Amino acid sequence: MKLLADRIKKDGKIYPGGVLKVDSFLNHQVDAELLYKVGEEFYRLFKDENVTKILTAEVSGIAVASLAALCFKVPMVFAKKNRGSNMSGDTYSQEVVSFTHGKTYEIAVSKEYLKPEDRVLIIDDFLARGNALIGLIELAKQSGATVVGAGVVIEKAFQGGGEMARRTGIRVESLATIKEMTDDTITFAE
Amino acid sequence: MKLLADRIKKDGKIYPGGVLKVDSFLNHQVDAELLYKVGEEFYRLFKDENVTKILTAEVSGIAVASLAALCFKVPMVFAKKNRGSNMSGDTYSQEVVSFTHGKTYEIAVSKEYLKPEDRVLIIDDFLARGNALIGLIELAKQSGATVVGAGVVIEKAFQGGGEMARRTGIRVESLATIKEMTDDTITFAE
Repeated sequence: MKLLADRIKKDGKIYPGGVLKVDSFLNHQVDAELLYKVGEEFYRLFKDENVTKILTAEVSGIAVASLAALCFKVPMVFAKKNRGSNMSGDTYSQEVVSFTHGKTYEIAVSKEYLKPEDRVLIIDDFLARGNALIGLIELAKQSGATVVGAGVVIEKAFQGGGEMARRTGIRVESLATIKEMTDDTITFAE
Repeated sequence: MKLLADRIKKDGKIYPGGVLKVDSFLNHQVDAELLYKVGEEFYRLFKDENVTKILTAEVSGIAVASLAALCFKVPMVFAKKNRGSNMSGDTYSQEVVSFTHGKTYEIAVSKEYLKPEDRVLIIDDFLARGNALIGLIELAKQSGATVVGAGVVIEKAFQGGGEMARRTGIRVESLATIKEMTDDTITFAE
């Protein structure tokens, strides 16, 4: 998606350790019009899959998943990261190791919102090492739902998560795939 | 907004202590089509205010603020709750006391995304005691931006936050105002 690659080149900031920050349009400030176009592109890619639910994880997946859900006209569910006083009842839960933060956390979804008859499209902002995506796939599978695929805004292919996720047999579509990153250049895959 | 009041009556769950859970369409599972209509209603109310930015706080404000931002065609910024390894540079920050969770937390926004020339509309899912909203107003004011108002999906008027927020001179518009709540009934204000 050229619009997205152009925006990443223009506004993305590279930090040591292969960290790409896109805070100006995706992770802190959100360009809703761009993300609606991203949602339309996911719809174009997955419209024949009879998606009944969009699944993402808080925090940074929520904006793009909300706009994708609008395009698909289905509900979006976001997995919560800390089951606290505001999460009641039975949940599915899954451990995830965070590459960015260097710690393990748990994601959880109420059993009310993922059902065996659901056809789930997972949406996330980034695919790097793949831990978050694998966690969401496992979470969805616990419910007995069918995971029809995953739509990712930015894939950092050099970190291997995409390869790992695709090896599970899940269809993964990334709208901007970064092949290589140095301290000052970003190279996209064709 | 009748559509919203009807949905709250149908799907809202009341818990002890005046807690209303609307996890099935707003706070865990998200009805994006409903929230887009909510966004359109906020646009109708604030369209003459030359809004340049939507401001909310993570987590549960993000979905509705994203869809509102789409209606206004302006960027949305969400204040982060824990400034960790993924928040760099200068920030505005503000302490907030959480009624639901019974603790104090800090919200922060990068100085890059709130400027003195901005005309900010604050969007949030709930207005109860008003602490989160007051925190967002203070945060925006730190930047020198003009706060043109606040749009709230559900106001629990009996918890006094709306009155407190309006006393600051800020225009607060709530799309569903709950006057009274017992263990099994919800009474909306006219």
